Amino acid sequence: MESWDLIVIGAGVAGLSAGIYGTRSGLKTLVLDEKMAGGTTADAPSVENYPGFQKISGMELAQKMTTHCRNAGVAIHEFEQVMSLDLKSEKKQVKTNRTVYEAKAVVIASGSHYREIGIPGEKEFRGRGVSYCGICDGPLFKGRRVLVIGGGNSALITALYIAELASEVKIAHRRDMFRAEDALVKALEIKKNVEVLWSTEVKEIKGEKLVNKATIVDRKTGETKELLVNGVFVQIGEAPNSQQAKEAGVEVNEDGYIKIDIRQRTNIAGVFAAGDVTNHPVKQIGTAVGQGITAALEGYGYIKRPYHYK
Amino acid sequence: MESWDLIVIGAGVAGLSAGIYGTRSGLKTLVLDEKMAGGTTADAPSVENYPGFQKISGMELAQKMTTHCRNAGVAIHEFEQVMSLDLKSEKKQVKTNRTVYEAKAVVIASGSHYREIGIPGEKEFRGRGVSYCGICDGPLFKGRRVLVIGGGNSALITALYIAELASEVKIAHRRDMFRAEDALVKALEIKKNVEVLWSTEVKEIKGEKLVNKATIVDRKTGETKELLVNGVFVQIGEAPNSQQAKEAGVEVNEDGYIKIDIRQRTNIAGVFAAGDVTNHPVKQIGTAVGQGITAALEGYGYIKRPYHYK
Repeated sequence: MESWDLIVIGAGVAGLSAGIYGTRSGLKTLVLDEKMAGGTTADAPSVENYPGFQKISGMELAQKMTTHCRNAGVAIHEFEQVMSLDLKSEKKQVKTNRTVYEAKAVVIASGSHYREIGIPGEKEFRGRGVSYCGICDGPLFKGRRVLVIGGGNSALITALYIAELASEVKIAHRRDMFRAEDALVKALEIKKNVEVLWSTEVKEIKGEKLVNKATIVDRKTGETKELLVNGVFVQIGEAPNSQQAKEAGVEVNEDGYIKIDIRQRTNIAGVFAAGDVTNHPVKQIGTAVGQGITAALEGYGYIKRPYHYK
Repeated sequence: MESWDLIVIGAGVAGLSAGIYGTRSGLKTLVLDEKMAGGTTADAPSVENYPGFQKISGMELAQKMTTHCRNAGVAIHEFEQVMSLDLKSEKKQVKTNRTVYEAKAVVIASGSHYREIGIPGEKEFRGRGVSYCGICDGPLFKGRRVLVIGGGNSALITALYIAELASEVKIAHRRDMFRAEDALVKALEIKKNVEVLWSTEVKEIKGEKLVNKATIVDRKTGETKELLVNGVFVQIGEAPNSQQAKEAGVEVNEDGYIKIDIRQRTNIAGVFAAGDVTNHPVKQIGTAVGQGITAALEGYGYIKRPYHYK
């Protein structure tokens, strides 16, 4: 069985940061990801709030961090899927679709996935007008009508990005105020082709081969309408990728996020968590980086027990 | 009295990150620093572990973050010294050498200062051979003999930097192993003009106008020797700049670091802390950034109480 000091599950920005610090600390470190390295950061059209980079595309930032990690000497295995975890013993086991690894400590940085609304038409039209990633699919809607669902940062960033391409963008938000950075709200206000539908729920997505309509309801008046749209971008937040950790005995909160302390420790000795999969209240690139660093250094302390480790 | 939403004390990387997020969230945000913005990051000859920048000088990274912060619209007052804090009421007051400000929330990101050893000659020869900052004073010792005291990351980074300039570098470390990244230890091993004096304490720094000798003692044998040196770089860690916070009622631990929870809250409502001044176990640029972001967003939540704030 292949043996490592530290295995990091997930090569998003938290996992890559853990990788850099693990390897620089002298730990034999493996970072695994079922997809390409970079995580959901790569899906962001534009990042303006990772300190040091005033404005950079998510893809470029993700690539910079991946290169940084690789050049630090970290083994990054992309497109290798974790199937199950065995974490309770001192030697942790990570079973993937290729092999089984052993590790002295594990950092879970498996991130989150886009939440679905669960309305008729959503699954049916996925990839045929329904999307969860503006930068991936935005260009398909050049000159067309787009509906963005949500009211947080990612909904607004997506709407701003698509407004440059689409003829018309509507944002349907369940509440009557955004949960987003003021800078984004202000940037949206000056867009001429964006309209916000406050207190609005989307009830159904319709079409033939491709999406052509969405049924919306005004939550205050109860009035139902049909909108003509070619694309629907669902941006209603994320849910944690914590199922395997949970099955291996890692404690999660009521929404499935892994419970951590200030040192990124979970309830299992030698198992740490970092980034969007945790119950930390902030889900930002900069906070994921900080957590990944802490998790790796705590993993180092756990494995090596140097004189300064408490 | 000038009134702000959020006042951040300290313009190191934690404070600058808090500034970026405070302003982007729509808070009227002021960042104060008694020195130039950038904090101790600017003193680092080389930074290789802030994810996204494979290798950058501390000065350049500090400048990038300062520019990022300023361009986000944050007011940064440099060379303005905080004299005292009044934090217990809902309206917080920050008294400086220029005026008194009022704020709804405060982030303390005042960092730390270089610790002194407290031996004869240290104070006397400060600035005349005794230094606490390699990048500031290293070039003064081109072709000369230098002693670095310490065994952590900053001691090794300083030694590596000065080895390129000085004819000869000795590192005196109290213990028989370093408390530093493996990558740094390995880089040091291949330097021909560096010698490590293990289990060694420095007892006195001597000279006439300038430093010319250091008295060392071997902790195992008790043997005392005199080294001929022109420069002594003290790199034995930091102590928190928490005195004013403590006097204002902010709880600190036995070493004076401000106690925080996972959300960067202190014991006083509306007062947050981030970076090197806190009791967080990791003191890295990336972790200070993450903490600054969290502190500002928690400050936003505390002030605005949006529906999603718990």
